[in-house]
Amino acid sequence: MKKINRRTFNTKLGQGLAGSVLLTAMPFACGMSNANKKLGIALVGLGGYSSGQLAPALMQTEYCRLAGIVTGTPEKEKIWMDRYAIPRANVYKYENFDEIAKNKDIDIVYVVLPNSMHAEFCIRAAQAGKHVICEKPMAISVKECDAIIAACKKAGVRLSVGYRMQSDPYTNEIKRLVREQPFGAVYYVSSDAAYISSGNPDQWRLNHSLSGGGALMNMGVYAIQSNIYGTGQNPISVSAQEFSTRPEYFKDTDETITAQMEFPIGAIGNLFTSHNANANRLFVSFERGWAELNPCNTYGPLAGRTSEGKEIRYPHQSQQKLQMDDFAKHILLGTPNFAPGEMGKRDMIIVEAIYQSIREGGKRIALNLGEMGIVKV
Amino acid sequence: MKKINRRTFNTKLGQGLAGSVLLTAMPFACGMSNANKKLGIALVGLGGYSSGQLAPALMQTEYCRLAGIVTGTPEKEKIWMDRYAIPRANVYKYENFDEIAKNKDIDIVYVVLPNSMHAEFCIRAAQAGKHVICEKPMAISVKECDAIIAACKKAGVRLSVGYRMQSDPYTNEIKRLVREQPFGAVYYVSSDAAYISSGNPDQWRLNHSLSGGGALMNMGVYAIQSNIYGTGQNPISVSAQEFSTRPEYFKDTDETITAQMEFPIGAIGNLFTSHNANANRLFVSFERGWAELNPCNTYGPLAGRTSEGKEIRYPHQSQQKLQMDDFAKHILLGTPNFAPGEMGKRDMIIVEAIYQSIREGGKRIALNLGEMGIVKV
Repeated sequence: MKKINRRTFNTKLGQGLAGSVLLTAMPFACGMSNANKKLGIALVGLGGYSSGQLAPALMQTEYCRLAGIVTGTPEKEKIWMDRYAIPRANVYKYENFDEIAKNKDIDIVYVVLPNSMHAEFCIRAAQAGKHVICEKPMAISVKECDAIIAACKKAGVRLSVGYRMQSDPYTNEIKRLVREQPFGAVYYVSSDAAYISSGNPDQWRLNHSLSGGGALMNMGVYAIQSNIYGTGQNPISVSAQEFSTRPEYFKDTDETITAQMEFPIGAIGNLFTSHNANANRLFVSFERGWAELNPCNTYGPLAGRTSEGKEIRYPHQSQQKLQMDDFAKHILLGTPNFAPGEMGKRDMIIVEAIYQSIREGGKRIALNLGEMGIVKV
Repeated sequence: MKKINRRTFNTKLGQGLAGSVLLTAMPFACGMSNANKKLGIALVGLGGYSSGQLAPALMQTEYCRLAGIVTGTPEKEKIWMDRYAIPRANVYKYENFDEIAKNKDIDIVYVVLPNSMHAEFCIRAAQAGKHVICEKPMAISVKECDAIIAACKKAGVRLSVGYRMQSDPYTNEIKRLVREQPFGAVYYVSSDAAYISSGNPDQWRLNHSLSGGGALMNMGVYAIQSNIYGTGQNPISVSAQEFSTRPEYFKDTDETITAQMEFPIGAIGNLFTSHNANANRLFVSFERGWAELNPCNTYGPLAGRTSEGKEIRYPHQSQQKLQMDDFAKHILLGTPNFAPGEMGKRDMIIVEAIYQSIREGGKRIALNLGEMGIVKV
């Protein structure tokens, strides 16, 4: 099915088909050989995000469905099989995961493991001939991102990063304001992505060998994304500072980081990320007004407003539903990939530059990203 | 009159009298020898802030009044005399300003000149035996602040900085939330103070010898103030970065500066100030909620809200009226001085540390401010 879809709906043709009339009229009609009209997704890693967000979202998706699971915890197998009517044949352990290559029910593998395991499992998924969604952050180094991208390219499969905000209507309204400029050009963008971490000090997010980093890896990528879609451009420099106020808890990973970015248009970006404060905001200052989201990247409902006093408001939808459907449509219909691997790699280049700046006492690091990872729609 | 007031209403007695019943019952009754019940203010420098804000505010003040002017522009003399019924005897030029010492109509001198002239005229006002309000920023160096404070102390006159926000109800609601902690302790504070400068490139604010600095001197002190009242503490460190995107316009002064602060309680502060972006915001993130003002230090009306969805709203009043009345009450009744000289000096210490950090590539500068300039009410 994948091959037929990729052949039949290449990007050019798919974009021609992307009008809503056509989509409504014949969403799955063209050349689909599989009786099951939805692409099958296998979740790799059944932690809180899979159980609390992705699996419920996959009950609502229109273009894909929860078809399989991959878990290292035997007790979870029966629970998930029962709850989501997953056949035994679609249940894998990490050890026999590669056998998924033979499973025609599975079109997409969604890797939801700790950050340091992303690269291995994304590459194995690609080698198994499956399309790949890699949860954010894409990996723990640019080198790993490159390896994932290369593996997907070699295997001829599509690759997306779990950036649900790229499919979210609030985010897209900000992008529209940036693009259409009703308030003029962007001069300043500020994004905060932070929450107070507490509880189990042994959680993997606080373990550097599993997470690859702390607040910056986990929440900072949201702030980076917000700065970028808040200007519509990639930064040309970044500088950063690290703060530690609870070292007894954050023993192994960064607690709080501030960063600054310069953009080609002349806009300045200010970023804050932390595992020791609650803040979830985006503010875009245009020449003649502003727009803000608060919260801007929680699971929602989000909220926003503009300097005109207008609320930004949409009916709440699962962002994960939108995200996974967008990727399935990209595969099926050739619509844009809103979060391609190059976007995840670009953000990891910025993450590495932020850590470098911190190591070098706040030095401004030049970035040569060009249009890397920017999706023009 | 000043001496009688200072003797009669010393701080201790004044605080005893500060209850609203007493204030209402006998606002000017105690020991006032002057038939004119309001303290006379002379404005030094009749630029846009004096004409657009201070003079109109002095038409509304209850404890002080516009009694005199000091100007270097002869054409302005008659206009102001006519408009505000100022007698010729209360009109001074910079050259004969010191003769104001003999003028019993003038109790307070408000210095509204370009920053680099603050120190000279504040010191001359103090030497003339007048109480002093010095517009912000207090001066262009800590050394100058010290000289102003010393001159006022020596002359036995009161000194205040033109920090109108310290008398503003929105600001004071933030202070209350910080003090009373209905949302818990502060973890993060973010303040932006910026506007897009345009027009006359020869304006004094863009001339370093007159302004002592650009965005940081003009707007940055608001962001510093917001960070400090947003935590209720003085910072223990600051780091900063400077950005320049329009060097052809900002030839002589800083255009955009970001800064970060650490506070003793463990909170982190993030600051943005610019003459090349519009942003006027304060966000305080507590353990269990947040409060924000936007705008937070324009002339108003201000607006604010909390994470509970509650609007922060007060009837709009002239901040300058509140500020000047507060200082007059401080003199007359011994109520607190909400913006003492030590507060202006503290902020100038931070300003100098920010410039130092920028010169040293973003180095974190330790600050030893203790409680300097903090007014506990």
